[in-house]
Amino acid sequence: MAVITPWDVKGDIDYEKVINEFGLKHLEKLPSEFMEHILFRRKKVFAHRDFQSILKAKSEGKKFVMMTGLMPTGMLHIGHMILAQQMIFYQKLGAKLYICVADIEAWNARGQSLEVSREKAIEQYITNYIALGLEPKNCEIYFQSNRSSDPVKANAYYRLQNVLARHATFNEFKAVYGEISPGKMVSSLLQAADMLHVQLPEFEGPVPTFVPVGVDQDPHLRLARDIAKRYKEHRFMQLASTYHLFVPGLGGGKMSSSDPSSFISLTDTPKDIKKKINKYAFSGGQATIEEHRKLGGDPDIDTSYRWLTFFEEDDEKLAKVYKDYRSGKLLSGELKAILVEKMSAFLENHQKKREAAKKRISEFFD
Amino acid sequence: MAVITPWDVKGDIDYEKVINEFGLKHLEKLPSEFMEHILFRRKKVFAHRDFQSILKAKSEGKKFVMMTGLMPTGMLHIGHMILAQQMIFYQKLGAKLYICVADIEAWNARGQSLEVSREKAIEQYITNYIALGLEPKNCEIYFQSNRSSDPVKANAYYRLQNVLARHATFNEFKAVYGEISPGKMVSSLLQAADMLHVQLPEFEGPVPTFVPVGVDQDPHLRLARDIAKRYKEHRFMQLASTYHLFVPGLGGGKMSSSDPSSFISLTDTPKDIKKKINKYAFSGGQATIEEHRKLGGDPDIDTSYRWLTFFEEDDEKLAKVYKDYRSGKLLSGELKAILVEKMSAFLENHQKKREAAKKRISEFFD
Repeated sequence: MAVITPWDVKGDIDYEKVINEFGLKHLEKLPSEFMEHILFRRKKVFAHRDFQSILKAKSEGKKFVMMTGLMPTGMLHIGHMILAQQMIFYQKLGAKLYICVADIEAWNARGQSLEVSREKAIEQYITNYIALGLEPKNCEIYFQSNRSSDPVKANAYYRLQNVLARHATFNEFKAVYGEISPGKMVSSLLQAADMLHVQLPEFEGPVPTFVPVGVDQDPHLRLARDIAKRYKEHRFMQLASTYHLFVPGLGGGKMSSSDPSSFISLTDTPKDIKKKINKYAFSGGQATIEEHRKLGGDPDIDTSYRWLTFFEEDDEKLAKVYKDYRSGKLLSGELKAILVEKMSAFLENHQKKREAAKKRISEFFD
Repeated sequence: MAVITPWDVKGDIDYEKVINEFGLKHLEKLPSEFMEHILFRRKKVFAHRDFQSILKAKSEGKKFVMMTGLMPTGMLHIGHMILAQQMIFYQKLGAKLYICVADIEAWNARGQSLEVSREKAIEQYITNYIALGLEPKNCEIYFQSNRSSDPVKANAYYRLQNVLARHATFNEFKAVYGEISPGKMVSSLLQAADMLHVQLPEFEGPVPTFVPVGVDQDPHLRLARDIAKRYKEHRFMQLASTYHLFVPGLGGGKMSSSDPSSFISLTDTPKDIKKKINKYAFSGGQATIEEHRKLGGDPDIDTSYRWLTFFEEDDEKLAKVYKDYRSGKLLSGELKAILVEKMSAFLENHQKKREAAKKRISEFFD
C-alpha cells in the first residue's frame, strides 16, 4: 500500500487513485506554451486543483502568483529540478514568484540551525535556481525567520500565522499529519501563512495564487485551504495547485536526500555520475546479453529510461530508445551510457552556470 | 479546594500554600523606597521568584526591565490598578517598562477582533495608566499583532515565538493549562516570546527582567522559564517575578470583569460607586445595630475594610477603622460610607486626569 503524507512517501504510487482520493483533476487542454515544455508535454505535471483560475488570469493579462517553498536540508538533487524548472517556466509565463525558505520548519522539524539553513539555501538551492534560469525580476525570495525588511510586511505575515491558529483544530492537524508536536504545528501554521499571506493588503491583495507540488505535499494545501475558508476577516481567493510526478530514485524506489545512492546531485562530477548510474540504476534488461537480444528489455521499469523521459527533450530520440530497448537492439549498458552522457553534459554545463550564478545572489535580496 | 490556573481562580486562596507549591519566596527585606509604597508596606505584593537579581541590578545602578501584559477585554477595574500602580512605581525606581497588549491572545482565546482590542487597550487601559502616572520615557507599549515599526525587531520577536516551539511539548501545555487548542498554544508561545524577547540582541540583550503578576499567572511564567532553559541558541537571564494579592470582589469572592456587581471600574461615577458598595459589598457586621454595638464587626471578612487596606494610604487612619469596627463603635453603614467617600474622591480626581491623559496617548507610540 502506498502511504502519502508530507513526511513519508512509500511504495509505488497509483496516481489515478491519488487524483480520485484527493479530489484533483487531470491537467488537460493547456495553452500551446505549456506544450512546448517537456514537463507538461509528457504529463510529468499531471494534475491540478483550481488551476483554471490561473490560466484565466494569464489569458486576460491579469496578475497571478506562483508560491513555493524550499526546505534547506540536504543537497539539491535532480528530483528537485522538476520544481525548479516549473518555477522558471512560470516566471517566463508572467507569474510573480514568491519563494519561501522554510528555515523555521527546518529548525522545528529537524533541529537545523537558522544559520546553517541560510547557508544551504543560498549555496545549494538559490544558486542552482539562478543557474537554471531564475531571474530577480518578479521574484521575491524570503526566509521564514526573517520575512521582510519592510516592517508593515513583516508584522502582517507573522500576524496572519497567529490569527489563523484560531481556525485550526488539533484533530485536523493529526488527521493531516499523523503525529504532531508544538514545533510541527507552529511550522504548519506558518506554512499556511506562507501560502496565503501574498493575498493580504500589505502584499498583493486578493490575487490568483497557485502552488506547484508533488502529491506528498497536498495535505499542506488542503489544510491551508480549509483554514482560509474559515477566516472571515480577509477574503482569500482559494489556493490553486498543480501536481508533478516524482523522478524515481536510481534503485527504482523514491529518490531521497538522505540516501545518496538514490540520486544525482546538481554538484556531482561526470565521474560520480558514471559510477552512480552504473552501480545503482535499476535495469529493466535481461540477465544475459543473449536473453536480452532475444526477449528485449522493459523500459517502463528501467530507471535509465525513466530518467530520460524527464531529461531527454527530443521526443523522437526518446521514442527510438524505447523501441530499441524493447526489441533488444539496445543493451542495458548502452542505455545507461546514454543517460550518463545526457546527465554529464547537462551537469557540466550547469556547473559552469553555477559559478556565474554565485555572483548574482545579491540581486535576489535587498 | 482552590483552583488556580490562568483561566480560573476559584475559592479562597491559601497564599502560604501557594508559596510552597509554586516554589516562591516571601518578599522580605526590601529597600526603604519600597516600604514607602502601600502595596509593599502592607504585603499586597507578598512573594517573588528570583527578585534578588532585580534588587541587585537596581542597587548597582544597572539596567533592569519590568515586563507586563494586558488582555484588552472588558473594562479596567480597580483590581487591575494593583498592577498599574506597580508599573508606575517601578518606572520611577528606574526600570525600563515593556507593556504588551495581548491582542493576539484576545483573538485566539476570546475571538475579539484586533480592531476592538486596539480601541479597548487605548481607551480603557493605556489612558488609565497614563492618568495613574505612567510616563513615555523608558516605556515601550506594543501590540502582539504589530510588534514594531523597526523590521529588525519585528522579525526577531516573531522568530523567537517560532523557534521556541521546538522546546515545548503538548503534555507540558496540557499540564499547565488543562485543555488547550492550537489558538491557545500559539498564544502561549507568543506570551513566552513576550517575556523573553527583550533579552534578544535586537532589543536589550541579556538583562535582569521581571514580571509582576497575580499568582494565577504563574503557570505562564514557569512555562516560559522552562522553555528558555532549553533554548541554547541564546543565553537568557532567568525571568524573575513578583506576586500580588487579589483585591477581593465586592461580594467577597473573586473580582471578575464579567461580573459588574463584583467590581468598581475606573470610569464609574460617584453615584455608581455609592450604589454598588451599598448594594453588593459583603459586610462583616452583625445583623442588627444593637448586636453590632454589643459584639462588634469582623473587618477581616468585610469587603469595605479589605478594600481600604488597598486604598487608604494612612496607616493610622486604617488602624482606627479596624479598631472601631471590631469594637462595634463603627457601624457597617458607616464603614461603607468611608469607602464610598474614599473611592469617590479618588475616582473623581482620576477621571479628571483621564481627560488630560487622552491627549497624551500619541506620546507612547511611534
